[in-house]
Amino acid sequence: DFLSALDEVQPAFGVSEEELQQVIQNGIIHYDASVEETLRTGKLFVDQVRTSSRTPLVSILLHGHPGSGKTALGATIAQQSDFPFIKLISPDSMVGYGEAQKVNAITRVFMDSYKSPLSVIVIDNIERLLDWSPMGARFSNSVLQTLLVLMGKRPPKGRRLLIIATTSLRPILTDLGLSETFDSELNVSPITTLRALDVVIREVKLFSSSQEHKEAIRMLAEAGFRDEENAKLQIGIKKLLSMIEMARQEPANVAQRLTGALMGLGM
Amino acid sequence: DFLSALDEVQPAFGVSEEELQQVIQNGIIHYDASVEETLRTGKLFVDQVRTSSRTPLVSILLHGHPGSGKTALGATIAQQSDFPFIKLISPDSMVGYGEAQKVNAITRVFMDSYKSPLSVIVIDNIERLLDWSPMGARFSNSVLQTLLVLMGKRPPKGRRLLIIATTSLRPILTDLGLSETFDSELNVSPITTLRALDVVIREVKLFSSSQEHKEAIRMLAEAGFRDEENAKLQIGIKKLLSMIEMARQEPANVAQRLTGALMGLGM
Amino acid sequence: DFLSALDEVQPAFGVSEEELQQVIQNGIIHYDASVEETLRTGKLFVDQVRTSSRTPLVSILLHGHPGSGKTALGATIAQQSDFPFIKLISPDSMVGYGEAQKVNAITRVFMDSYKSPLSVIVIDNIERLLDWSPMGARFSNSVLQTLLVLMGKRPPKGRRLLIIATTSLRPILTDLGLSETFDSELNVSPITTLRALDVVIREVKLFSSSQEHKEAIRMLAEAGFRDEENAKLQIGIKKLLSMIEMARQEPANVAQRLTGALMGLGM
Amino acid sequence: DFLSALDEVQPAFGVSEEELQQVIQNGIIHYDASVEETLRTGKLFVDQVRTSSRTPLVSILLHGHPGSGKTALGATIAQQSDFPFIKLISPDSMVGYGEAQKVNAITRVFMDSYKSPLSVIVIDNIERLLDWSPMGARFSNSVLQTLLVLMGKRPPKGRRLLIIATTSLRPILTDLGLSETFDSELNVSPITTLRALDVVIREVKLFSSSQEHKEAIRMLAEAGFRDEENAKLQIGIKKLLSMIEMARQEPANVAQRLTGALMGLGM
Amino acid sequence: DFLSALDEVQPAFGVSEEELQQVIQNGIIHYDASVEETLRTGKLFVDQVRTSSRTPLVSILLHGHPGSGKTALGATIAQQSDFPFIKLISPDSMVGYGEAQKVNAITRVFMDSYKSPLSVIVIDNIERLLDWSPMGARFSNSVLQTLLVLMGKRPPKGRRLLIIATTSLRPILTDLGLSETFDSELNVSPITTLRALDVVIREVKLFSSSQEHKEAIRMLAEAGFRDEENAKLQIGIKKLLSMIEMARQEPANVAQRLTGALMGLGM
Amino acid sequence: DFLSALDEVQPAFGVSEEELQQVIQNGIIHYDASVEETLRTGKLFVDQVRTSSRTPLVSILLHGHPGSGKTALGATIAQQSDFPFIKLISPDSMVGYGEAQKVNAITRVFMDSYKSPLSVIVIDNIERLLDWSPMGARFSNSVLQTLLVLMGKRPPKGRRLLIIATTSLRPILTDLGLSETFDSELNVSPITTLRALDVVIREVKLFSSSQEHKEAIRMLAEAGFRDEENAKLQIGIKKLLSMIEMARQEPANVAQRLTGALMGLGM
Ligand SMILES: Nc1ncnc2c1ncn2[C@@H]1O[C@H](COP(=O)(O)OP(=O)(O)OP(=O)(O)O)[C@@H](O)[C@H]1O
Ligand SMILES: Nc1ncnc2c1ncn2[C@@H]1O[C@H](COP(=O)(O)OP(=O)(O)OP(=O)(O)O)[C@@H](O)[C@H]1O
Ligand SMILES: Nc1ncnc2c1ncn2[C@@H]1O[C@H](COP(=O)(O)OP(=O)(O)OP(=O)(O)O)[C@@H](O)[C@H]1O
Ligand SMILES: Nc1ncnc2c1ncn2[C@@H]1O[C@H](COP(=O)(O)OP(=O)(O)OP(=O)(O)O)[C@@H](O)[C@H]1O
Ligand SMILES: Nc1ncnc2c1ncn2[C@@H]1O[C@H](COP(=O)(O)OP(=O)(O)OP(=O)(O)O)[C@@H](O)[C@H]1O
Ligand SMILES: Nc1ncnc2c1ncn2[C@@H]1O[C@H](COP(=O)(O)OP(=O)(O)OP(=O)(O)O)[C@@H](O)[C@H]1O
Ligand SMILES: [Mg+2]
Ligand SMILES: [Mg+2]
Ligand SMILES: [Mg+2]
Ligand SMILES: [Mg+2]
Ligand SMILES: [Mg+2]
Ligand SMILES: [Mg+2]
Repeated sequence: DFLSALDEVQPAFGVSEEELQQVIQNGIIHYDASVEETLRTGKLFVDQVRTSSRTPLVSILLHGHPGSGKTALGATIAQQSDFPFIKLISPDSMVGYGEAQKVNAITRVFMDSYKSPLSVIVIDNIERLLDWSPMGARFSNSVLQTLLVLMGKRPPKGRRLLIIATTSLRPILTDLGLSETFDSELNVSPITTLRALDVVIREVKLFSSSQEHKEAIRMLAEAGFRDEENAKLQIGIKKLLSMIEMARQEPANVAQRLTGALMGLGM
Repeated sequence: DFLSALDEVQPAFGVSEEELQQVIQNGIIHYDASVEETLRTGKLFVDQVRTSSRTPLVSILLHGHPGSGKTALGATIAQQSDFPFIKLISPDSMVGYGEAQKVNAITRVFMDSYKSPLSVIVIDNIERLLDWSPMGARFSNSVLQTLLVLMGKRPPKGRRLLIIATTSLRPILTDLGLSETFDSELNVSPITTLRALDVVIREVKLFSSSQEHKEAIRMLAEAGFRDEENAKLQIGIKKLLSMIEMARQEPANVAQRLTGALMGLGM
Repeated sequence: DFLSALDEVQPAFGVSEEELQQVIQNGIIHYDASVEETLRTGKLFVDQVRTSSRTPLVSILLHGHPGSGKTALGATIAQQSDFPFIKLISPDSMVGYGEAQKVNAITRVFMDSYKSPLSVIVIDNIERLLDWSPMGARFSNSVLQTLLVLMGKRPPKGRRLLIIATTSLRPILTDLGLSETFDSELNVSPITTLRALDVVIREVKLFSSSQEHKEAIRMLAEAGFRDEENAKLQIGIKKLLSMIEMARQEPANVAQRLTGALMGLGM
Repeated sequence: DFLSALDEVQPAFGVSEEELQQVIQNGIIHYDASVEETLRTGKLFVDQVRTSSRTPLVSILLHGHPGSGKTALGATIAQQSDFPFIKLISPDSMVGYGEAQKVNAITRVFMDSYKSPLSVIVIDNIERLLDWSPMGARFSNSVLQTLLVLMGKRPPKGRRLLIIATTSLRPILTDLGLSETFDSELNVSPITTLRALDVVIREVKLFSSSQEHKEAIRMLAEAGFRDEENAKLQIGIKKLLSMIEMARQEPANVAQRLTGALMGLGM
Repeated sequence: DFLSALDEVQPAFGVSEEELQQVIQNGIIHYDASVEETLRTGKLFVDQVRTSSRTPLVSILLHGHPGSGKTALGATIAQQSDFPFIKLISPDSMVGYGEAQKVNAITRVFMDSYKSPLSVIVIDNIERLLDWSPMGARFSNSVLQTLLVLMGKRPPKGRRLLIIATTSLRPILTDLGLSETFDSELNVSPITTLRALDVVIREVKLFSSSQEHKEAIRMLAEAGFRDEENAKLQIGIKKLLSMIEMARQEPANVAQRLTGALMGLGM
Repeated sequence: DFLSALDEVQPAFGVSEEELQQVIQNGIIHYDASVEETLRTGKLFVDQVRTSSRTPLVSILLHGHPGSGKTALGATIAQQSDFPFIKLISPDSMVGYGEAQKVNAITRVFMDSYKSPLSVIVIDNIERLLDWSPMGARFSNSVLQTLLVLMGKRPPKGRRLLIIATTSLRPILTDLGLSETFDSELNVSPITTLRALDVVIREVKLFSSSQEHKEAIRMLAEAGFRDEENAKLQIGIKKLLSMIEMARQEPANVAQRLTGALMGLGM
C-alpha cells in the first residue's frame, strides 16, 4: 500500500511560497543579538551547500522552548536561500495521515528535492511528525526510520540539499538516535531581558504614546523584570505576542494586564 | 481509508443549534459569583478573537470535577459569541467510531471552521474523545496527535477561531502534553456553600412553601453544611440536581432524603 | 466496518420477553429481607424515571458475589417496570462477536431505546461484555469507551431511560472508571443464615416430609451453620440451588450430601 | 468474518465415535482404586444431568500431571453416558486455526448441543485451546471469553448439557478465572505405587513367563520403588506405557531397561 | 486464510533426498565415540517406531552448541531409517514466510506423514522456526502452539511417526514448554580433545605428508590443547572445518594459522 | 502477500556498479596503516571464497563508530573482488518499505546470488535495515529472522558467497543473536592521530601552500592534538571531511575554524 499511498499525494516541485508565508506572516522582530546570529549562521550553511561540492548534504537542528520562534526562523533561513527548491514538511499538512501516508509524503519531498541542483527542506516540529506521546513513550517507528535514512542519504551526484529541522524536545530526539544525524545544532532561546521586551512592545505598537510606553517599561521593571543576571523572565516570542494582544483588549489597563500575565507565568 | 472515512461523515456548516441546546437545556443557575465570573472571562476571549487580528487562534480549557457544569458553561459561552460558526465536538456523537473515523470527524470540523471568518469549536470531554482508560493508561494516540496539531495550527489568513475544551482529568491532559497548548485554563469548581445550595433549591422549586424551604435549609445547616471555611460539602451541580429529583420522589420526606443523600457523598 | 457490522444485527424494539424469561425462569425465592429490599429500591428508581422529567437518565449497578442472584434480580426489576421498551444486553447473546460487533450491538440497543418514551436496559455481566481477563488485565477498550459514553449520554428530549447493570467485579469497574457513572449501587449479598437456607430448602421441596426437613436443618445446625453472627456460611443462591439438586440425586443421603457440600465450600 | 468463518467448519451432530475411539484406543487399565473412583464420580454427574431438571448445565474439570490419563478418562465417561450428543473439542482438530476459527468451532459445538435433549461436551486440553504460552503469559483472550460465557450459559429450556474439561495446568485456569466456572473438579493422579506398576506390567504382557514378571518386580522393589509412604515413583500412565514399549525393544534386558528408565525420571 | 495459504505450498510425498543431501554433503567424521553413540541411539528409536505398535509416536531432541553437528546427525539418522516418508522441516526453506504460512507448511508435512505407514520428520533449528529473538523474548506463538499440538497428536491408526528435532537453545524450549513433549533428549557435544582434532585434520587431508601432520599436532599440544581433563578446547565440528579451510589458504603457515585460530576462540 | 510483494521488486543480476560508486565516490584516503590492513584482510576472505570449495559461505562484519568509513571500505572490498555478482543491500534503497517488502527485497538478493558461482553481498547498516530504535528497543523481528536464516544458509552446490555487513551498533547485533553468525569481525576505527589528520588535510588540498599547511598542523598540535598515547582526538573520516569543507568556507580562517570544530567535538 506504500505505492498506492504514493498516488494520493500530489507531487510538489519548486518553492512552496504559501506554506512558508503562512508561518512567517508575523515577521521577525530583532529583539536581540541572538536573532541576527541565528539567521547569520543559517546563511553560512546555505552558502556551504551552495559552494562546496564535497558536502552535498548538510543538516541543522533548530531547537528551543515551545514558541521561541523556531519555525519562523527556520522558514526565514530557507526562504532567504533563494534555492530553486524550498519545501516545508510540517505536521500541519498531514493531519489525519496514517503512518504509511506520512512516510510517503516525507519521502516524496526528498525525492523531489533530488531533482533540483540546490534544495532546502524544512522539517518542522519533528516530535509531532513522529506522533510522539510522552505517556507510554509512543512514536511512529516507521516515520523515525524514514527520517534516519533520508537524513543520512547523500543526494545523487550534482544535487545538494540543506535540511533544517525544528523541535521543542531535543532530548527525545537524542534518545531516538536522531540528534547525531545533524551536522550542527542551533539553540533558539526565549526572551529573558527587559530590553528585548522593550523592543517587542515598541515594534508591535502596543502603546500609542511614548509616555505610556515608558510607564509600562517602568512598571515591568518594578515588577522585577529588570535584573538580567538572574532573570526571572523566560518567555517565547510567540506567547509574548499573544499576551500583548490579550492586554490590548482592555485599553485602560494594558500595562497592568501585561505585567500580570508575565508574572503569572512562573506559577 | 482516511479519505474514504471522510465520506461517511456529512459536512456541517454554521451553528449546530440542536446539539448546543441539548447540553444546556437545564439552563444555568447563578448559584455563585464564580458562575458569572466564568461566563465573563469566556466573553473576554470571545472578544479578543473578534477584535485582535494578531491572535487568530485562542484556546481555553474548562476543567473541574465531574458534573461541575463544564459542558453547559462551555456551550453557553460558545452560544453567546454569536459567531457564524459554532460547533460541538463531543464523544456523544461518535459512539462506535474507530480511531480513523474520530480523527476524520474532528479534522472536518476544523476544516469547516476555516471557511468562516469567526468560529468557536467546543471540544467536549477530551478524555473520552481520546478513549482514555486509567487501567493500562490506554488512549488513542492518533486522536491525541490530531488534537495537538489542530490546536496549534493557525487558521488561514483572515479566519479566526476560539477553541473551548472541557475535561475532568486535567492531570492526564498535562501528562499527554495537551495542557500546554491552551492559552488559558478556567477552573469550574463544585458547590461547597450552603448559600449556593439554597439558591439552587429555590431555583428548581423543590419546596412549594417558603416555610418548607427554610426548614430544609435549617436541617442542612444542622447536618453540618454550614461552616464555609472547612466545607465538608463538595458536589457538582449536575449530581446535586439529580439528588434533588430523587428526593422529590418522596413528598413526605424531601428534606430528609436530600440531607441524607448529601451526607452519603463523603462515604 | 462499523456500518456494515450494523447490518448483521437485527433491530429490536419493544420488550424482549424470551430473554428475560430465560434468566428468571427459576423464580425469586424470598429467603431474606434483603431480597424484598433490593426489589423495592429498584422500583423506586423505576418510579423516578417514570415521573421526574428532570432526570431522564438514571443508572444503577447491582454488584455481588458470583451466583448471588444479580441477573435474576435485575431482570425482575426491569420486567416489573412495565415500560414499553425493556432490553437485556448480555454476553450470552454475543458469543463470538468481535469488538466492533459488540460495540455495535450495544449501541443499537441504546439507539432503539431512544425511540421509546420509557425504557429499561439491563447490561448484564459487564466484566464479560468487556472481555475482562485478570491475567494481563486485558479488556476491550472500545467496549469500555462505548459504555462510558452511552451511560453518560442524555436521551433525546422527552425520552427517559433506566440502566440496570450487573457485575461480580465491582473493584475492576472502579479501576476502569465505570463505577462513578452510576447514580446508585445496590449490593446483592450471598446467603449467610440458617434461616435463609431453611426457606430455600423448603421452597424447592427438597424433602417430602416435614420430619425429614427438620432433621436436615438440625444436621446443618450441628455442622456449625447456626450462629449467625460470625457466619461461616457464605453461598450464592445459584450455587446453593445447584448443590441441592446434586444432593437430591442420592435419595438415601440427601441431608448428608448437602451438609457435606456446604462444608466443602470453605476449603 | 465470524460468520464467514462459520461456513468453513462443517456442522456435526450426534456422537463423534471416531474421535473418541482415537483417544481411548489403548483402553483403561484399572491399576488403582482411584481409576474406578473417577469413572464412578463421572457417572454421578451424568446421572444428575439426566434426571434433575433444575440443573440443566453441569461442568467438571479433570486435572492432573501430563500423561496421567485425563483425556482417556474424560472420553470414557462421555462415551458411557450414552447421551445422543457426545462431542470432543480438541486442539488436535484445530491445528492451524486462527482465533476467530477456534471461537467459531467451539461455539458451533455448543450450539449443536443445544439441539439435543442430553449432551456431553469434552473440552480437551484447555491450555492448548487457549494457545497458552508460559513465556510472556500469552493466550487467546477471545477463546477464553468464549469459554467463560459458554460454560456459564444455560442451555435452552428442555436441553441439558454436561461439560467435561481436561487440563494439566489447573493453576493457570484459576489465574484466568476459568476454575470457578466449574461445578466440580476431579484430580487424576499419577502412578506412585509398586502395586499399580505391577498391574500395568501384567496387563500389557511385558513378560511372557510369570517367573520373569516376578523377577522384574523384585528388581524394581530393590531399586527403591517399594515403600509406598514416601513414594519416589511418580509417573503418568501414558509415559509408563511408552517406557514399557521402549524396554520391550531389547528382549534380553527388559527389566533392567525399565528400571533404568524409571530411575532416570527423577533426574 | 489458512485454507488459502494451504494452496500456496505444494504437497510433498516420499523422501526429500535433495534437502537431506544438502545438509549432510560434508559427511560425518567419526572423530569420537560420541558420534557413533548418537547414531546408534537414534537407530534404537527408529527400530522402536518400526516394531512396537503401542508407541506410534516417538520424538527425540538433538541439542548442543551451535555448529556441533546436530543437523547433520539428525538428517543422517533419518536417512538411515529407510522409512518411506522422510522429510525435513527447516527454516531455510521458509525464508520470508509469514506466521500463517509457516504453520501451514509445518502442518502439511505432518498431514502428509500420516499417509505413510512409517515416517520420520526432522524439525531443524526449532528456535528459528519459532522466530525466536532473545531481545524482548519474541517468538511466534502460533508456530509454537502448532508444534505443541502436532508433537503430541497420535498419528491415525496404523501410522507411525518418528520426530527428530534440533536446537541450540534447549533452555528456551524448556521455558516455552516444548521440552517436555519429547520422549528423549540427546546431547551433541563439541570437540574437546586433541585426539578428536587429530582425526578430523587427518580426515580432511589438511596436510600432504604425515610428517607435517605430526608437526602440527605437536604444535597444537604445545599450545595447550593436550590435557583432556580440564580441556580448554571447545569447538563445534562445523566451525572447526571452517577454520581448517581458512588455514589452508596460506600453504606456508597452515599449522600456525590453525593453532592461532583455535587459541583465538576463548577470547 | 509475500508472493505478491515479490513482484513489486524487480530482479537484479550482476554487479550494481552505480550503487557501489555512490558510496565510494569520495575515494579511500590511506591516512593510516589500519586502512590498508582492513582492505588486505578483506581480500583474504575474498580469496578463501574463491578457492576453497569446502567453505562456500563466509561472512564478515565491519563495525565501528558512525562515519568511520565502514560502508566505503566494505564496498571497496566487494568491488575489488571482481566477482560476477556484487550487490549492495542498503536501507537507502528501501525507504518507505514495509516489513514484508524489506524481507522480500533482501531475500531476492540472496536468491539471485545463488545463481552466480561467486558472489559478494554487502549488507549495509544492519541496524537501519532492522528498523532498530533504541527507545523501546524496537526492531523488525521478521527482518532479523530473515537475516539470521539467510546468513546461515549454505548456497546450493557449486555456488559460493561472501557476505560483508556493516554496523555502528555491534553490541545490539550481539544482543539480537546476529553477531555469532559471522565468521569474522573487523573493527574500523576512527582517526586519532595528528599524523592521520595531516595526511587527510593534505590529500583534500585544504591549503594551497605548503606553508599554510604546516602552520595549520602546528596550530592543531598546540591545541592538544599531538600526544598520540592518550589521544583526545577521535573522529570518523566522514565527519572530518565534512568539517574540512565547512572550514574551507572562510578562506581567511581555515585553520582556526578546523581547530575550533575539532575541539568542539568533546563537548
Ligand atoms: N525574532 C523572532 N524570531 C522568531 N519568531 C518571531 C520573531 N519575532 C517575531 N516572531 C513571530 O513569533 C512567532 C514565533 O512562532 P513560531 O511558530 O515560529 O514559534 P515556534 O518556536 O516554532 O513554536 P512551537 O514551539 O509552537 O513550534 C511567529 O509568528 C513569528 O512571526
Ligand atoms: N451554574 C451552572 N453551571 C453549569 N451547569 C449548570 C449550572 N446551573 C445548572 N446547570 C445544569 O447543570 C448541568 C451540568 O451538567 P454538565 O454536563 O454541564 O456538567 P459537566 O461538568 O460537563 O459534567 P461531566 O463531568 O459529566 O462532563 C447541566 O444540566 C446544566 O444545565
Ligand atoms: N432471591 C433470589 N434472588 C436471585 N435469584 C434467585 C433468588 N431466588 C432464586 N433465585 C434463582 O437463583 C438463580 C440466580 O442466578 P443468577 O444468574 O441471577 O445469579 P448471578 O448473580 O447473576 O450469577 P453470576 O454471578 O454467575 O452472573 C436464578 O436461577 C434465580 O432464578
Ligand atoms: N487407568 C487409565 N487411565 C487413563 N488412561 C489409561 C489408563 N490405563 C491406560 N490408559 C491409557 O493411557 C493413556 C493416557 O493418555 P491420555 O492422553 O489420556 O493422558 P492425558 O493425561 O490426557 O495426557 P496429556 O497430559 O498429554 O493430555 C491412554 O492411551 C489410555 O488409553
Ligand atoms: N561427526 C560429525 N557430526 C556432525 N557433523 C559432522 C561430523 N563430521 C563432520 N560433520 C560436518 O560438520 C557440519 C556440521 O554442521 P551442522 O549444520 O550439522 O551443525 P549444527 O549443529 O546443525 O549447526 P547449527 O547450530 O548452526 O545449526 C556438517 O557439514 C557435517 O557434514
Ligand atoms: N580510509 C577511508 N576509509 C573509509 N572511507 C574513507 C576513507 N577515506 C576517505 N573516505 C571517505 O569517507 C567517507 C566515509 O563514509 P562512510 O559512509 O563509508 O562511513 P560509515 O562508517 O559507513 O558511516 P555511517 O556510520 O554513517 O554508516 C566516504 O565518503 C569515503 O569515500
Ligand atoms: Mg514551530
Ligand atoms: Mg461534560
Ligand atoms: Mg449474572
Ligand atoms: Mg490429554
Ligand atoms: Mg543446524
Ligand atoms: Mg555506513
